[in-house]
Amino acid sequence: MELTINLQTGSKTPLYEQIYDYIRQEIQSGRLKSGERLPSTRALSRHLEVSRSTVELAYEQLLSEGYVEAQPYRGFFVAEIEGLYQISRSSEREEKKKQSEAPKYRYDFSPSGVDLKSFPYNTWRKLSRECLTDDRTELFRLGDPQGEYGLRSAIANYLYQARGVNCRPEQLIVGAGNDYILMLLTTIIGSSHKIAVENPTYRQAFRLFERLSYKLCTVDMDRKGMSVDGLRASGADIAFVMPSHQYPLGTVMPMKRRMELLKWAEEREGRYIIEDDYDSEFRYKGKPIPALQGYDSKGNVIYTGTFSKSIAPAIRMSYIVLPEKILRIYREKCSFLSSTVSRVDQLILQRFIGEGYYERHLNKTRALYRSRHDTLLRCLRESGGQFEISGENAGVHLLLHFPPGRTEEDLIESAGKKGVRVYGLSGYYVGEKKEDGAGPVILLGYANMSETKIADAVHLLMEAWQ
Amino acid sequence: MELTINLQTGSKTPLYEQIYDYIRQEIQSGRLKSGERLPSTRALSRHLEVSRSTVELAYEQLLSEGYVEAQPYRGFFVAEIEGLYQISRSSEREEKKKQSEAPKYRYDFSPSGVDLKSFPYNTWRKLSRECLTDDRTELFRLGDPQGEYGLRSAIANYLYQARGVNCRPEQLIVGAGNDYILMLLTTIIGSSHKIAVENPTYRQAFRLFERLSYKLCTVDMDRKGMSVDGLRASGADIAFVMPSHQYPLGTVMPMKRRMELLKWAEEREGRYIIEDDYDSEFRYKGKPIPALQGYDSKGNVIYTGTFSKSIAPAIRMSYIVLPEKILRIYREKCSFLSSTVSRVDQLILQRFIGEGYYERHLNKTRALYRSRHDTLLRCLRESGGQFEISGENAGVHLLLHFPPGRTEEDLIESAGKKGVRVYGLSGYYVGEKKEDGAGPVILLGYANMSETKIADAVHLLMEAWQ
Repeated sequence: MELTINLQTGSKTPLYEQIYDYIRQEIQSGRLKSGERLPSTRALSRHLEVSRSTVELAYEQLLSEGYVEAQPYRGFFVAEIEGLYQISRSSEREEKKKQSEAPKYRYDFSPSGVDLKSFPYNTWRKLSRECLTDDRTELFRLGDPQGEYGLRSAIANYLYQARGVNCRPEQLIVGAGNDYILMLLTTIIGSSHKIAVENPTYRQAFRLFERLSYKLCTVDMDRKGMSVDGLRASGADIAFVMPSHQYPLGTVMPMKRRMELLKWAEEREGRYIIEDDYDSEFRYKGKPIPALQGYDSKGNVIYTGTFSKSIAPAIRMSYIVLPEKILRIYREKCSFLSSTVSRVDQLILQRFIGEGYYERHLNKTRALYRSRHDTLLRCLRESGGQFEISGENAGVHLLLHFPPGRTEEDLIESAGKKGVRVYGLSGYYVGEKKEDGAGPVILLGYANMSETKIADAVHLLMEAWQ
Repeated sequence: MELTINLQTGSKTPLYEQIYDYIRQEIQSGRLKSGERLPSTRALSRHLEVSRSTVELAYEQLLSEGYVEAQPYRGFFVAEIEGLYQISRSSEREEKKKQSEAPKYRYDFSPSGVDLKSFPYNTWRKLSRECLTDDRTELFRLGDPQGEYGLRSAIANYLYQARGVNCRPEQLIVGAGNDYILMLLTTIIGSSHKIAVENPTYRQAFRLFERLSYKLCTVDMDRKGMSVDGLRASGADIAFVMPSHQYPLGTVMPMKRRMELLKWAEEREGRYIIEDDYDSEFRYKGKPIPALQGYDSKGNVIYTGTFSKSIAPAIRMSYIVLPEKILRIYREKCSFLSSTVSRVDQLILQRFIGEGYYERHLNKTRALYRSRHDTLLRCLRESGGQFEISGENAGVHLLLHFPPGRTEEDLIESAGKKGVRVYGLSGYYVGEKKEDGAGPVILLGYANMSETKIADAVHLLMEAWQ
């Protein structure tokens, strides 16, 4: 057999790889048949006028991938390749082009926006590179089901200092996003519970609870948060609350209500509070109120938080702090479940927190969001619009309460005609919103709007709402 | 105010950062008080004998992180920092040192081993770097709930070519590991089903089904796989099977049994088969049998697979192929659930598959595992031991069937005394193993054992089992 390979000496592809590619294709296409002997490395190197080691490299590669077999004293033979993987790139299964939706709105006050321009991309990339240096193959071995201890330790430390959360790293489980964290919780405690949610509420969690077949009920909000009398009357054994900044109302639950809530949980064995501290990082005025969990001496609070809001949505890392009673069930019955976050990502985040980048990033983002918050508040107040403002001083959105007479649809539609997208509160209610004689409420999220854009958009809103 | 900063000109830390660090610490410690005016950039640069732009850089950083505030025409003032994040590294919460377990065994025939030495670390690192080049911030925006289309397309293409799986990328959902994939499936179809598992079976899945509150039953295996008569009698509506290489028995389900299984599903509306194709990548003899899913024309097979075995356990990427009926429920009720895999990881895997690295890696690993398989088989056959071998020609473990008379404990213990860890089949049974008069069965996994080690270990086993 003679192999005539048209080698490209000027090519980026090394010569040995060109030889390897050629022979592999010949084998795959069936032109070189199973059992045929390849030329000796010496003969082929002479024939192609390349060094013998180049040919040897090519043969070794073919050997390691099973295309050829070595027979002692006889040379290299084309292998039986029937079972070999040959994955050709299909043409008909081409990547679907996403239809780029025409940008209907010039300004979008989305309440769930995140400013990705402030994402510390370069730091993240640097850490990512450093984590994948030589000899870190152990990072691809299955890790601790709860998440690596070092990361949990860094998170526990952060939560203690920034949020007053009392927990040992042993109580923490890191998971791939909020939805997963709630699924995991369900796997631990089962779904034979009745969960009370605030109304209006964070619909994502509500829908998930629904799918997980919990019994669900809603409890109305007053100005201080979930009504504890309403909670008591509901017959629920779990309360799902967002005390630091309720979504969507923006209510910060005062200390007294927090204590009442904790008391409710203590009144009967088996009652729990799920505290979703989803955007507690952003508070612009006054001292942040520590998490409910920090005041819970009886172990009735299940605390959850996420890095989706404070770092970036797609890093997919959230966490849950289990009180001792539930931790015990987890250990007995669920610790066989593998972690859902890659160890590389865990290590990057651990270093991001431990080396001070997270602190810097939080302060930077908060300063940014605060000036957007201040600008929006100022523009709205100076606009002379007919509304009251609530939900300010924390989070990344605020609410405009209009006097009765106008409808939410009308406000949204007229804003839309000016190219400004705003959001109505009614979509956050479970069931029909109670007819309370109050006027419509509009949500304005500012995380993803520059100050100039905010000023322009408020101007347009006032024109629309005249 | 005069700031005397001891600048280290030879230091790695840039001068501006030294100034920034110093002032920040002065503010944090309270030595610089809220409202105090900082020296002008001109004055400080003269005082410190550095360029003015150096001081400006330091001030900008302090400004962006909220430590100082700028007042037009007046200069820089120390901000109210009460709410600022100041996360000190705690000393008492130090990282727990893992107690390194003394290696009790010199040889470990773990059936769940993976050879990480063949993990394509450099390729993975290269792709990881390339994915995080400039301007890829969009990768940190929340992606498609099912996983990025490009990745799903690559997986669908691979599954079609390598496993005969018929699916459109639209039917695929990528998730963070097998456990998550089964949790997600439960969230879609609910847990009011009765699942039949093979006995013995993959305990991890069984325990998870148990925790997810499914009704469960076991159906005995014969030499061809799950008994379809037994399945019919069980009253189950879902069958969980591993046709390409049953774990732990290593049975490859023949075509006839596959057809009977599909027929069972078709007999009644709402019956499903979950096909776990966990290690189908490794088959050493004969043509691989296509997946059950590929023969299912009625849409009754739910197909799951993973990259944990074929690439590395810690990359946390598995997938599920939903038949149309279940896909419809997913779309209506569960598509609000966010993806559990980071987009960076998805992109790395997409390129790993799409650029031919996966094909190479599979062929390489298979060649490696095949020679370990062959060596183990040869050593065992030449050893003259009193056992029959089964489960060969696929997967990464095989089974030794001993004549009655000896106990499993005795075989494991005597091997252990020689420093060889082996595994008993009885641990894989749900409930008590039926007394069938057969002798004990030992599992030998070879994925993580070099050929020399295999030869040595078999030698020791024969001494132990004399």
